[in-house]
Amino acid sequence: MKIGLDIMGGDYAPEATVLGAIEARKSLSPHQKLVLIGDREIAENILQKNNAGTGDFEFVHTTEVIGMGDHPTKAIVQKPDSSISVGFKLLKEGQIQAFSSAGNTGAMLVGGMFSVKTIPGVTRPAMTTIIPKLKGGMGVLLDVGANADCKPEHLLQFGILGSLLAECVYDMPAPRVALMNIGEEEEKGNLLTQASFPLLKESTQINFVGNIEGRDLFNDAFDIAVCDGFTGNVILKLAESFYVITLKKGLKDEFFARFNYEQYGGSPIMGLNAPVVVGHGISNPEAIKNMVLLSKNMVESNLIEKITQAFHQTN
Amino acid sequence: MKIGLDIMGGDYAPEATVLGAIEARKSLSPHQKLVLIGDREIAENILQKNNAGTGDFEFVHTTEVIGMGDHPTKAIVQKPDSSISVGFKLLKEGQIQAFSSAGNTGAMLVGGMFSVKTIPGVTRPAMTTIIPKLKGGMGVLLDVGANADCKPEHLLQFGILGSLLAECVYDMPAPRVALMNIGEEEEKGNLLTQASFPLLKESTQINFVGNIEGRDLFNDAFDIAVCDGFTGNVILKLAESFYVITLKKGLKDEFFARFNYEQYGGSPIMGLNAPVVVGHGISNPEAIKNMVLLSKNMVESNLIEKITQAFHQTN
Repeated sequence: MKIGLDIMGGDYAPEATVLGAIEARKSLSPHQKLVLIGDREIAENILQKNNAGTGDFEFVHTTEVIGMGDHPTKAIVQKPDSSISVGFKLLKEGQIQAFSSAGNTGAMLVGGMFSVKTIPGVTRPAMTTIIPKLKGGMGVLLDVGANADCKPEHLLQFGILGSLLAECVYDMPAPRVALMNIGEEEEKGNLLTQASFPLLKESTQINFVGNIEGRDLFNDAFDIAVCDGFTGNVILKLAESFYVITLKKGLKDEFFARFNYEQYGGSPIMGLNAPVVVGHGISNPEAIKNMVLLSKNMVESNLIEKITQAFHQTN
Repeated sequence: MKIGLDIMGGDYAPEATVLGAIEARKSLSPHQKLVLIGDREIAENILQKNNAGTGDFEFVHTTEVIGMGDHPTKAIVQKPDSSISVGFKLLKEGQIQAFSSAGNTGAMLVGGMFSVKTIPGVTRPAMTTIIPKLKGGMGVLLDVGANADCKPEHLLQFGILGSLLAECVYDMPAPRVALMNIGEEEEKGNLLTQASFPLLKESTQINFVGNIEGRDLFNDAFDIAVCDGFTGNVILKLAESFYVITLKKGLKDEFFARFNYEQYGGSPIMGLNAPVVVGHGISNPEAIKNMVLLSKNMVESNLIEKITQAFHQTN
């Protein structure tokens, strides 16, 4: 297995990414190769400074970088030798089995859709996030930004994708899928959620448990929450801001600590035809390490094959 | 001035509502009459038990109650002698100048639209909520649930309504209006926010400052945030849940304390042709008192006249 890592992506790259790669390497078995994609000379310098053997890694040298502010679609086209563009080329060609980056999220999404494409039957890939639960454990929320406008069938697909992710990668058997809504009753909601409820309810591919509301996000009523990417993105950023506030105020608490993105490593983009993970822009080495290990888990669990099978049955 | 209060509405009514009325009375001047709408005998008993003079209040006796679980539209029609239905009848007839209730929110919205109706030019009334700011002070978010699906012109109207509320009632001069969105740049968002941005930007009736994201809710970038009622309701309930979590965990903090709904008294329904305030279902006497005083402030500030004038100019 070869696991690709964009070492140029993220606010603290390449220092944080290479240090993260060194840490990840320690948790990988010898047959699991870590492929560092980016400026090889810089990477080797950082490795040497940190007494890490360059022989423990494979390198694919690139000369361009897609910045955080770059327009995703334009950047993918105009910077063919960027670490993200090359990473997806390698992924498409099967030279790596997973690709992760803490760089430009939009470019990761567009790059994935242009190169490995979506799994047949999946109409929209979705971004995911982990939601810590008050009683321990976690939930998965999707979509958190890939699709600002959604149709009911997309929310059903998010439910299937989220369920398989939770089962395969997060060890959550028979996950309960809920619809993020503004009332508990079936008829509540906007046009999207009102039309989505019966679709979710009738599906035999998910374990649908009904509506949840904003106040239920951290409780134990669900494992997977589905919503359009606009709602999910607002929720994600609002929840993150609360975590930041508790940090700034020095509030120590086991629950708030579990908001720390570092331990989750990043957000899988679900529905792409290969394991792709996007890390937080501010990823430190710990986050990078966990992002690499998450992408490895996606390969090992045969998640893509299971999604392909699930959507083959549907369509 | 006569201020109407539904003494049957809320989880702790009529005890909490009548006790709240006693407290509110102390802050009102002699010419400001408080009209208690509900079961008169029960009200008088509570007043007497608490050594409050029944002569300090006016009473309108009603025999029915709209419950929290009642269907709003049906209940308004089927319970004509309910405290909410009668309250709106009095408001429509000009026998009271403001009406507030901690009862069924949907019935308050429907009752208002059926009786006093919307101000000419206002296409959709909106529910508001107060957002505490980290640096002190507060913001206003609307719509938080009256309109699950919105059009761009509704968001512009929310901006105008919110601005006038902030200026007249919350003492916020020249309030800055922001669009709740999923990116800072003008072109970001879903179909609704993308189409709303230019409308808000071009309006001369509001002081538009651009997009905000979920993470900006508690910062100082805006005074009024507008969004569709689905997004706003999810935000409201999520923010409330954070507050409840900090309470349960015993976290003491000045900022979190300002999430306490009691001090704000309730949410004005903006766009109706009379001052109407809805209180939190769990309102205690302190919250009821502040709800009454908020509705009084709406009358005293001539808010309805100012909104009428603003929408007369537009249309």
